[in-house]
Amino acid sequence: MTALSSGVLGSLDPTSDRAVFRQIADQLREAIGRGKFAEGAKLPSESDLVEHYGVSRMTVRNSISLLQGEGLVSSEHGKGVFVRPRPPVRRLASDRFARRHRDQGKSAFTVEAEAAGSRPEVDNLVVKEERPTADISARLGAPRKVLARRRRYLLDGRPVEFAVSYLPLDLARDTPIAQPNPGSGGIYARLEELGHHLDHFDEEIRARMPSPQEVKTLRLSAGVPVIQLIRTAFDTKGRAVEVCDTVMAADAYVLNYHLPAT
Amino acid sequence: MTALSSGVLGSLDPTSDRAVFRQIADQLREAIGRGKFAEGAKLPSESDLVEHYGVSRMTVRNSISLLQGEGLVSSEHGKGVFVRPRPPVRRLASDRFARRHRDQGKSAFTVEAEAAGSRPEVDNLVVKEERPTADISARLGAPRKVLARRRRYLLDGRPVEFAVSYLPLDLARDTPIAQPNPGSGGIYARLEELGHHLDHFDEEIRARMPSPQEVKTLRLSAGVPVIQLIRTAFDTKGRAVEVCDTVMAADAYVLNYHLPAT
Repeated sequence: MTALSSGVLGSLDPTSDRAVFRQIADQLREAIGRGKFAEGAKLPSESDLVEHYGVSRMTVRNSISLLQGEGLVSSEHGKGVFVRPRPPVRRLASDRFARRHRDQGKSAFTVEAEAAGSRPEVDNLVVKEERPTADISARLGAPRKVLARRRRYLLDGRPVEFAVSYLPLDLARDTPIAQPNPGSGGIYARLEELGHHLDHFDEEIRARMPSPQEVKTLRLSAGVPVIQLIRTAFDTKGRAVEVCDTVMAADAYVLNYHLPAT
Repeated sequence: MTALSSGVLGSLDPTSDRAVFRQIADQLREAIGRGKFAEGAKLPSESDLVEHYGVSRMTVRNSISLLQGEGLVSSEHGKGVFVRPRPPVRRLASDRFARRHRDQGKSAFTVEAEAAGSRPEVDNLVVKEERPTADISARLGAPRKVLARRRRYLLDGRPVEFAVSYLPLDLARDTPIAQPNPGSGGIYARLEELGHHLDHFDEEIRARMPSPQEVKTLRLSAGVPVIQLIRTAFDTKGRAVEVCDTVMAADAYVLNYHLPAT
């Protein structure tokens, strides 16, 4: 009861037109924002909040649900409600595809993970030939079939992103790109060895709520959206040689970009 | 009952370990995804779904809540549940800050809105001097005070983003930048006239669930996250001359970026 008795949480405003459960959520949110309840800390119990505010148990539950939906707290069955720790964030630098990183034989993911002092891991790798969807087909210049490389990325054991790379099959078939391990520097290094010198990448960013499958794959908490990033790699002849469709846990990423002013 | 009788929705799998309300949501989600229920279309009524699946009203309600939380449907009181129309999307081009746009006397917002064939609008403009937060202060080289320009952007009458520009006060005071209307080309044009030639912009992108205030300001539906974009403008001397903190309705935006490969 320290938090309540030390005045961290105030009283309700009976004249407000804001619903009582929202007022309680507002106070808890503000206290979390000001660090009065630290990351990982337990919120006052349901009973304590019922007593403090003089409201029903259902009202308190509605307040907590609201905060859960915002991704601020998580409820552990039988243990209580806890302030969600902010996970380590992966910063995507705007130069992550610069040739100097590839020349060192490192993938963009490895470069970024090392910069953040995290342990990178890739699992669930599946490589197969398939027919492209209409969207992927349009982005790649309408190939009849594509090579799809699906994989999940983890940082320090936590899944942070799921990615699928699509390459025109005529370009990737019977090359190291079709192997589970494409070798040092990843598929971009292999593309250049095959004569497809990379010129630039276009990235498209969206954010949305995850599908149930994405919640499972990325082990997302309630109230955590995903960032969907669709990147197309172009060679110096202007051909789209790869499309990578990535779904990222939004609470694990900050994306950085550099825009010229001229 | 067309959708149900024509076999769009299947039956439940009694041997599945997936909860019944999730199975129903899965079927509705898939039907929406395949266009069996078009944008704006009404879903079968609660009673129809109760009858079709042979489940309780509460189970059907839980399925609908799940889809609402994902932003796929919205419930209109007394009318039914509808497939949310995908709103017109604002595409942010990677060259939106190129000088040629500023030279035409247009702001980035105007340029983008015109490209999308939409009617741009700005409201709730407030310009004032204030003390910067620790974060803004660090980004701007620790000015004692800043000029803050707050405003909301609308497309075709719909709020799509709320932005606050911060400039070191010593740079902006008693200039057109401190005026509600800074004139043709916006504050970037004025900064250049004041001798701060713009060199580049750094952008940081995050996605998260909105605060209650943001839901209100941007009139967000349930299950719609926000994209937070923090942009810093640097002049050719390397000085950070402006920070713009923008919160965007995620269902109204696609952000495009161009990354060099070299």
